[in-house]
This record gives sequence, structure tokens and C-alpha cells, in this order.
Amino acid sequence: MADYEMFELGDIVLQSQQTIRNARLAYKTYGTLSPAKDNAIVYPTWYSGQHYENEWLIGEGMALDPRKYFIIVPNMFGNGLSSSPSNTPAPIDRGRFPNVTAYDNVRQQYRLVHEKFGIDSLELVTGWSMGALQTYHWGALYPDMVKRILPFQGSAKCSRHNFVFLEGVKASLQADAAYNNGWYEAPPTKGLRAMARVYAGWGFSQAFYRQRLDITAMGYASLEDFLVGFWEGIFLPRDANNLLLMLWTWQNGDISNNEIFKGDFVKALGAIKAKAIVMPASTDLYFPPEDNAFEVAHMPNAELRTIETVWGHFAGGPGTSPADIATLDSALRELLAS
Amino acid sequence: MADYEMFELGDIVLQSQQTIRNARLAYKTYGTLSPAKDNAIVYPTWYSGQHYENEWLIGEGMALDPRKYFIIVPNMFGNGLSSSPSNTPAPIDRGRFPNVTAYDNVRQQYRLVHEKFGIDSLELVTGWSMGALQTYHWGALYPDMVKRILPFQGSAKCSRHNFVFLEGVKASLQADAAYNNGWYEAPPTKGLRAMARVYAGWGFSQAFYRQRLDITAMGYASLEDFLVGFWEGIFLPRDANNLLLMLWTWQNGDISNNEIFKGDFVKALGAIKAKAIVMPASTDLYFPPEDNAFEVAHMPNAELRTIETVWGHFAGGPGTSPADIATLDSALRELLAS
Repeated sequence: MADYEMFELGDIVLQSQQTIRNARLAYKTYGTLSPAKDNAIVYPTWYSGQHYENEWLIGEGMALDPRKYFIIVPNMFGNGLSSSPSNTPAPIDRGRFPNVTAYDNVRQQYRLVHEKFGIDSLELVTGWSMGALQTYHWGALYPDMVKRILPFQGSAKCSRHNFVFLEGVKASLQADAAYNNGWYEAPPTKGLRAMARVYAGWGFSQAFYRQRLDITAMGYASLEDFLVGFWEGIFLPRDANNLLLMLWTWQNGDISNNEIFKGDFVKALGAIKAKAIVMPASTDLYFPPEDNAFEVAHMPNAELRTIETVWGHFAGGPGTSPADIATLDSALRELLAS
Repeated sequence: MADYEMFELGDIVLQSQQTIRNARLAYKTYGTLSPAKDNAIVYPTWYSGQHYENEWLIGEGMALDPRKYFIIVPNMFGNGLSSSPSNTPAPIDRGRFPNVTAYDNVRQQYRLVHEKFGIDSLELVTGWSMGALQTYHWGALYPDMVKRILPFQGSAKCSRHNFVFLEGVKASLQADAAYNNGWYEAPPTKGLRAMARVYAGWGFSQAFYRQRLDITAMGYASLEDFLVGFWEGIFLPRDANNLLLMLWTWQNGDISNNEIFKGDFVKALGAIKAKAIVMPASTDLYFPPEDNAFEVAHMPNAELRTIETVWGHFAGGPGTSPADIATLDSALRELLAS
């Protein structure tokens, strides 16, 4: 039995002017919506993650406490649960699935929140990495609905360097002839393993590896054990077309790339009314604090609060660094109380 | 006509206890050896580079002035000119070429310097990146011969993070089935292009890309133009087996991994008597200054002097950042005068 619900979106037209017919948005909720519908939080998923992989920040006694809040975790398109290359019938299956933007994702998430639950006000939107990208979109697209945002280790727009990092990830997967432009029968495992190794250098910082935290904190027996057990373990089970779709979503992420803001990034940042705490990690190699500093300078009600850590992009990520997660949880609590 | 000379090494036994028969060391010299043989400099090549790609630091009026010094540029094994997978006959051709360490390289470079030229004292050894790795080896293996060293943007030992970065580069090349474990007839171009894109995110810093220096300083028309014209342009013409051999040399670089120091890295650093200026770049993503700081702390006569720059690993590299090269040249001049 699935541990999530499905919201039927019908036929949806994307920014690309392509249609996903009978599109579906998979989601899970935690806690109970109050009668006044004033305790809702939206917490989108990250690159390749599914709703259950967001749960490290949800729990009794934590800021995202399901006894108090109604927490909605919508699955990103392409993550294998919401409409994705891997689960959509022809003619838009697999290698033919249309590109989806973060804007497309958040527009449909809004429908879930509004049409399904009748919610018109959100206490908070928060998310990690690509979840942060979606968080920024919520703030810019629904400024009167979103009271607070806490995007962590992500950005409102994919930076040029981040784009290049992802070009390497993409090229390493596509170098495997078994990928076959998306028309594989068996998974392109060589490409998926290569992608995992490329990612490994980016996900954690130089200091993380220098301090051997893969061994001493995460419990792997050796560096090679970490590369196989952790990194290849993340990517091998996932579908290559799904990964490439979400990578496209990431590379093309930009809160101003739509008919509202028409590419004016500063204007889009200025539209975010929500009270915001933006939390980069000091050693994040692809979302460095400098990019967030620019954003915060153009947001009317935002604070930049950098997590000082050696855990790189995984600082506030899925359960790896307890100290950084405590810092993050404490900021979430503070923001929710304000 | 070749613009370099060849030193015939005969049969050489490597640290791996494998033999390269009729091994050859390609080199080029600049300037004239003084009658007292007291004006020699050794300047080894970098990853994939050949002697002419070292010339950005050599010139009249520069610190490495051929009117004053006799500058020897030895080509690293595997770079396509010295003995390499691409130019060695069976049975150790191509996918069967034995692994070569930086130690092996420097031992044979010593023979060139000593046997061919009769030089017993070096004014300076310097090098960029893997050239720096060889520079450290010179200092540790020939402490009474090497008066000064200036390793820039490299290290005496491949760090764990650097190793992981290289795992990604290697995996992206090997993901191409055309590579065929080294027994390709036509080059594995998909893998070489993938490798180039992986490298692109590491070679220059986040700030370099943020400031669009690929366009404004280097003259490319767009980011994609830079990825193809610069990065794919570097790797596509080079031989895959050669690149993988040198990558192995890099990953296994460690001045203490030999019968002299028996893995005692601190002891090996302590053996470097040469007066040293060690120059990392502040934004180098795979040779961060922290690793050099550890080294300098254990070297008896060394100064750490970080180049503040946004050019990342290419700061002092082949001709890309004139300001950083001026900083480097000035330090070389100062060291040579001391």
C-alpha cells in the first residue's frame, strides 16, 4: 500500500506549451489541518528525492511538528511518483517527456493546496536544495498567501557555475551508450555510477573529506565504500530519464522566467513579501552563500543566515549532520514563532 | 621537426616493479647552461600538458629568463611525448601500460639533469598543479641538490577530496563504451567530452563564472561556447589512455610513498631543505590553501603565500589570468634573488 495520496490534475499545459494529459501530483501530509485552515506548511522535495526522504525535518518536538502543523510534502514532477518519464504512457513517456520548470511545479502545487484543501494562507514554505528553488517560487508567485519562507542551501535562480556542475553530471550519465537517448530497456548503470562519482566531489566539502567524516561520522569503512555505498546507492535505483528531467528543471530554475516577471530577477525577488530566513551552508560548493547574499539584498523582508559547517551541501540535508540540522530546526522554530 | 629533445633512459623499473623497456624522456631546454653549471631550473609539466604548454612563465624580462637561466622542462610520462600508452610498443602499449608514480617521474628527471647535463645543483624547481607535485618530490628526494622550490596550485600528496574529484573525471571518460578498457581504435569522444564538462566546474571558481569571466575576460561568446571551445578543446585531442595514466599518477601522488619515507608524510615534508614559497590560489576548488598550510607547517624553510583571486585553479595557470601570473612571476623573482 502506498504511503502517499494522488491529486489528479487533469490535462496541464506547461511553460513549454506542451501538455501532460491526466497529470498527477503525488503528495503526503503530516498532521491535521485546523478548522480555520491556518496551520499549513508546504515542504517540497529535492533533486531526485521523494516525500519520505523529506522526513528528517518532521517530527514531534521539532519545528515542523505534526501535532501543531499540517505539513504538505508535494513530490516534484519527474521524481517517479508525480508525473514522470518513468510512469507516463506514450506518446510522452521516457525520452519524450516534456521539460518541466519549477514554475510549472509550483503552479500545480498551488492547485493541490487551494483546490484540494481550500487553504488560502500558508504559515511557511521551506525546502532544501531544489526544494529551496520551489520555496522561492512560492514566495514570488503567491506573495499574499505565503507568510514565511525558509529556503536552505538552494537559490532562486540556477547560477552559471551551478549550471556547469550539472553539465558534468548530465554528460557523465549520457556518455553511457546504454542510455540511448532515453530509450533504454535496462538501466544505463555505468552512466548512473559515473554520475554518482561526479556528484560525490560536489556534495560534501573539501574539509569534510579532509576530516574523514565519511568514515568517522557516517560510518563507511573506506572512501571507496562511501563512493559505492552512499553515492552509487543514491543514484543507481533511480530512473535515468527522471534524473535528467529534474536536472533540466534545476538548470532552468529562475523565479523570474515567466510572464509575470519577464526575466527581471531583481523584480521577482522584490515581490517576495514573506518574512524570510535564507540559510546557505558556508562550504556548499554549488550553492555558495554569495548567491544568496545577492538575493537577500533584493528581498524586502529577508535575513541571510549562513550555517557554518564543513558538511557542504549536505549540512541541512537528509539526516547526515545532526548539529547543522539542529541549527536549521532552531531557525525554523524562530521563524514560525515570529 | 620536433621542437624538443629525447633522452634515452634504457629499461627502467617502476615503483610497481614493472619495466618500461627503452623508455624515453622528452624534454626541452631554454637558455644556456653556464660553464659552472650553476644556473639550472627544472620546471615539470602539468596534467596532460606538454613542454610548450609550460611556456607562459618563460621569457625575457620574466623571472624564468632564458638569458640568465638554463630552464629544463621534462615531459611527464604519459603526456604523449615521453613514454606513454599512446607511443609505446606492445606488450605494454595502450590499455596495458604500467602505472607510473610522480616518484618514478622525478627519479628519471634526475637522471636527465645529472647524467645528460652533469648538473649537481638546481637554483629552482617550480611547477603548476601536477608540476607542483613533481616539484615537492624534487625537494624531498634531492634535498642537497635543490636550493629553492616554488610549487603553485598543487600539493605534495593528493588529498581525499581531490581524489574524489578525479574519480568523477575518470568515471565520466570510462562510461563511454567506446573506451573499451583502453583498446579503442577511434577515440572515445563522448567520454572525452563528458570528462571536459566534468572538469569545467572544477577548473574555475564559482566567482569566476558569476562574474562571467569566460566571456568578458577570455572572450568566449557564451557559456556553451566556453564549454566546447575551451574545455572540450583541451581534452578531445588528447589520448584517453594517456589521460587515465596521468590521472592515476595524480591520484597516487604522495612524496612519502616510497622506500625512503615509508608513508611518513610529515617526515617527507621535513626533509625538504629548499627555501620554499608555496602558492595556492584562494579559490582553487581542488587544491585549497588549507592542504598547503599543513605542508608548510611541516617544512623547515617554507612560506605559504596564497594568491587572492577568483580564477580558481587556473589563477597561475597557462596564460589565462595576467594579474595572477604577475603575482607569481614576482614571487619567483624574489625567491631566485634570495
